[in-house]
This record gives sequence, C-alpha cells and structure tokens, in this order.
Amino acid sequence: MRVNGKPQRTIWPAPQRDAVFVIDQRALPHRLVFERLADLAAVHGAIRDMWVRGAPLIGASAAYGLALQANVDAGSGALQQAGDWLRASRPTAVNLAWAVERMLGALLPLRPAERRTAAWALADAIAEEDVATNQAIGRHGLALLRELAARHPKRPLNVLTHCNAGWLATVDWGTALAPVYQAQAAGLPLHVWVDETRPRNQGASLTAWELGQQGVPHTVIADNAGGHLMQQGRVDIVIVGCDRVSARGDVCNKIGTYLKALAAHDNGVPFYAAMPISTLDLKLHDGLAEIPIEERSAREVTHLSGRAANGEVVEVQLTPDGSPAANPAFDVTPARLVTGLITERGVVPADEAALREIAR
Amino acid sequence: MRVNGKPQRTIWPAPQRDAVFVIDQRALPHRLVFERLADLAAVHGAIRDMWVRGAPLIGASAAYGLALQANVDAGSGALQQAGDWLRASRPTAVNLAWAVERMLGALLPLRPAERRTAAWALADAIAEEDVATNQAIGRHGLALLRELAARHPKRPLNVLTHCNAGWLATVDWGTALAPVYQAQAAGLPLHVWVDETRPRNQGASLTAWELGQQGVPHTVIADNAGGHLMQQGRVDIVIVGCDRVSARGDVCNKIGTYLKALAAHDNGVPFYAAMPISTLDLKLHDGLAEIPIEERSAREVTHLSGRAANGEVVEVQLTPDGSPAANPAFDVTPARLVTGLITERGVVPADEAALREIAR
Repeated sequence: MRVNGKPQRTIWPAPQRDAVFVIDQRALPHRLVFERLADLAAVHGAIRDMWVRGAPLIGASAAYGLALQANVDAGSGALQQAGDWLRASRPTAVNLAWAVERMLGALLPLRPAERRTAAWALADAIAEEDVATNQAIGRHGLALLRELAARHPKRPLNVLTHCNAGWLATVDWGTALAPVYQAQAAGLPLHVWVDETRPRNQGASLTAWELGQQGVPHTVIADNAGGHLMQQGRVDIVIVGCDRVSARGDVCNKIGTYLKALAAHDNGVPFYAAMPISTLDLKLHDGLAEIPIEERSAREVTHLSGRAANGEVVEVQLTPDGSPAANPAFDVTPARLVTGLITERGVVPADEAALREIAR
Repeated sequence: MRVNGKPQRTIWPAPQRDAVFVIDQRALPHRLVFERLADLAAVHGAIRDMWVRGAPLIGASAAYGLALQANVDAGSGALQQAGDWLRASRPTAVNLAWAVERMLGALLPLRPAERRTAAWALADAIAEEDVATNQAIGRHGLALLRELAARHPKRPLNVLTHCNAGWLATVDWGTALAPVYQAQAAGLPLHVWVDETRPRNQGASLTAWELGQQGVPHTVIADNAGGHLMQQGRVDIVIVGCDRVSARGDVCNKIGTYLKALAAHDNGVPFYAAMPISTLDLKLHDGLAEIPIEERSAREVTHLSGRAANGEVVEVQLTPDGSPAANPAFDVTPARLVTGLITERGVVPADEAALREIAR
C-alpha cells in the first residue's frame, strides 16, 4: 500500500541480510517510525511490545527472527530455542507458531552450513506468500462486496471493521481490508466505519491512518456505536480479521468482535472474518473452550497515548488512582454468528466440513 | 454518598437561594471541582457542557435553573422561555422535559409574586424525591441481588454496569448503583465490572471514582470486554441506568448499552435497567423508531483528556489528522432483551401492560 503516495510494506529485509526493517506501529498515527531489528532479541521484543502486530505480520516477523538467529548460530539447539522463545512472545496468534514450525521444519533437516541462506529464502517466501494470499482474499471479498452493492446501487456500501486487519497487520494489502482496497481499485464506492478498538485503539490509530493514506472514505466511531448503526441500517457488512479460527469456525479476534457479531446477527447484517488458511487451527474444535485468551497489562486500559496540542505524544491516565483494570485482549465469536470466512481459496461458511475441505 | 469520607450530594442550593452548587464532573476523576451556578445561563451551560449529566441530575438541575430564573423575572413569558431553553440543552433525557413541565405546571397558575418561593421549594422537593426514589430503587434491586447471590454463595456477586448511573448521575445514591450501595451496606459481597464507556469515559472516570470512594470492589474494563466476560461466566447480572424508556420497555441509554444487552441475552445473564418512573415516556411506543438520538461532537471521539505524568490534565488527539468521526451518544435496547426494570415501586418486566400499571 502507499504511505505519502509511495509504495510501502510493513517488513522488509536489509540488503545485506543482517537486519529487517519494520514500522514501529506504536507511534502511528502521529509519527511514522522505521526501526531496524538486527537480532532475534530485537524481533522478539518487537512482537512482544507490539511494534509489529496482526497475525500475518507476526508470522512473517517470527520467520525473519529465525533467519537473524541463523546468521549467528544455526545449530539445531539454538534454532529450536529461538523458536520456543518467539512462540512465547504473543500467546494467541496461531500464525506465530505456524511460521516457527514451518521455518524449523524446513531448516532442521538441512546441514547447519546451509541453514542461513535457506532461512532468509524461506522468510522471504513466507512474506511474499502473505502478500499473494491477501490479494486473493481481496479478490474473493470484492465479489461479496459487489453482490451487496448491487442491492444498494444509489449509495456507497457501508463496511464496518474492528481493530486493524489492514495492510499494517500483514506484509501488504491486509486481510479484512484487502476487499476494501480491491473495491476502491475497482471503482466500487464504499465507506468504512472504523471501530476505534479500545484499549489499544488500533482502529482509530492504524486502520483510520491506512485508509486515509489510501484515500478510502471512512469514519471513526467508538466501539459502542456499531450496534446502533446496524439498528439504523447504516452498516451493510461487517468484515474483521482473525487471530485463530477453530475447525468448526469459531473466530478468535480482537476483544469486542463478539459484540459486533451479535449485533450483526440481530440486525441481519452479514458478518465475515477474513482468514488466511494458515489462521485455521484444525486441532481445535470448540474455540470458546480451547483458545487461550491473552490477558494483557491493565495499564493499556488505565492509560492511553495521544498527541497533545503541542504535537508531543504523551501518555495520560484515564482512571482514578487505585481503580484496578482487566484487559482480556481477544474474544471468541461462535461459528453460529459468522456468515462466512473469506479465505485466499474462496468464501466458505463457518462449518467444519467446509473448513476441512478448503484447508486440504 | 461519601467523598473522602464525608457526605456529599451532586447539587445543593446556596443558603441565600441566589445560586446552586454542583460538581464539575468533567474534572473527575483527577480533580474534585465545585462550581457555583448563579443564573439560568450558568445552569443551561452546565447541562449542555455536561458539568452535570445523568437523567435525574439533569432534571434536578433544570428545576434549580428555573428557580434561579424566578429570582430575576418570574413572569410567565420569562419562565416559559427559560423552560424551552433548558429543554433544548440536552435532547435525549426525558427527565429534563419532565422537570421543566412539573415546575411550570406548578408555578404558572400562581401569582408572579409567589413564584420565587414556590420555585425553590419545588426544586428542593424534586431533589429530595430523587434521593428517596433512588433509595427505593436500591431496596428493590438489593432483593434481586440477594436472590442471585444465593445461587453463588461461595463468591462475590459480579455486577456489570455501563456508563455512570451512580450517585453522580443523580442527586444522591444513583439508579443502577443504588442496589450496589445497598448491597454493600447489607454486607452482601460483590464486585462491579465497570465499562469505561467511550467516548466520554463516564465509567472509567465517574463510576470507578465513586465506587472507589465508597470502597466497593470494582474493575475497569474496555467496553469491548463485557461480552467475553459473560461468555466466561464472570458476570452474574447487568444493571444500567436509562435516559428514556418507551411504553413497551425499550430502553434508551448510553451508546453501547444495546451491545451489552445482546451479550447478556446470548449468555443467559439477567439484564436490568434501573428506572425512576419519571424516566418512563408512555407517549412513546417503539423506542427504536421514536426516540431522537443525540449526535454529539466528533471531537469527543477523536480527542480525550487524562492526567499526564506531571499531574496536569491534558487533552490528546487519538486519530490521524483528516479522519472524521461520528458520535451517536445513545442507543435503544429493544424490550425483548431487557429482563426487567428496577423502579422505586418494584421490579417490573419490560412489558407495556406492566409498565402502564406501575406508572399509574
């Protein structure tokens, strides 16, 4: 996608293969900060502290983290330890474990001397595959949007999204927003309602920023507003990303997604999750019982950063001293509330047989 | 209720009846600021700019606003004009119109010379009635909480509330929180999940503050978290306030209430609105179609105030420059999602016959 009119990805290797560059997404939307990550520890920290976030980008970052480790010590023990450490950096995203397993599965059978070159090649491939996957998700999603738009030919289509599953959450294009960008390219008029997505405000800070950079009409709303807008007929479709999807189609995504799915169901609004097949965790059946939910720091609820009038980014406390906070970071939307999953291989219902079939 | 251990109300007249005092609730939870409102314009501004908020407190404030007007000019034209102006200060709360009508209905038949004394007496009576009403709501709500607690004798009862319908939203005691305070007084162990309630954060700033001041165990959560907590069985009851209730029991309350009602319904969690009978608008049937929803400034979504590390309260911008925002302030929860209404005359189902009966 574009930043200030120029093409940009969220992660790219240094030409000498001694580092990877990423955007420190914590500084957005107020500043665009590029960071050079020169070793495994830097990548681990960037994932843990959410400089990079979004399941697909976390996966690509982990792959590059292992490539950086292979620069230093490509021994089996070192790589396995690095993989374990990366896996522990964020507990929820299945792509993280998937990328680590894929890297280790390909590297460990090789002789140590061959692993470094192979690691960089595979990390690059994982990144490129993500781009291709998201483009395909975008194409399939565009077909859905066209169908809906045909029912409302006189006005732009209203899409509601939660959190950020745009290009910033991936290497490029995004998952939930890929259909939106493809629709824009195809000249289909649309408008995006952007849930601000407390507590980390990925909607207000990241989704709004990237939609603005691409020139897509959008409006930021409090997370509380989506149900009311659906009651008023002002939302035609909800598209969200997902961090893990169970075999029967339960969707684990950013906290609050479940509430929007309930509202969509109550108002007859189609609710879709955009899902690279790699996000499907066929080992899980009951997503509500089996997906571990990351509990993040209470400080993300009690404090918040923004740009003060003088241009400085400052952190402010929202709550009274002494009031504790809880911060479950994800929730699970049961399959019965999910109209379908938009994958790189097509749109499928949230149904075990269909999901097992498309994952073959 | 208590502030720093001392009894406090949200509004009280000056001894000379030349002003009323209120808490400027915009400064909470970081500073406790008392303001002296010396004329009608000051009261209008305090309602419009939300120094005072919450349907019952808005009603009492409007009553005192008319009393202040009667100090200056108690002519029928002046009082009627003052009433119209006050009614326009906030569009949603039915109590505002109710208090104005009650004041004018009592004052206009009197001779102008008698109106000033009568106005102050009636404003005092409206404030005292609010206190008594809320105590009664608290008693009826306590009975509900006792019943629920009997099913979970081994742990504190978990109450979830949205926005602030505590004593700060009323003259004293609160509506939704009155049962909580009565339960505390009765020694019933409970814990309150406090929705932060974006965009104005009345939960994180007001509800958390007043619960902390009374020593009630509570935890602040993002508005997105409540559905997940209900899925996990960590919420026993939802109690919210309401700004207007239609004859069939549709509940208009702070934006986001509808989403919590959906989640409560989906998880078998009882969902109650605490409602002084004065909040019931029997002229309305279909709350979704007929209740006008206040659209507030986009700046409440794009900007937010909090306490910086140096102790200063600063406003920060959350969104990128150029991203618009929308800010519907209320939503309507359809009666089918409402388990019941806790009124000063008892708990009633959200049902037209029952509501008309209790309002007689």
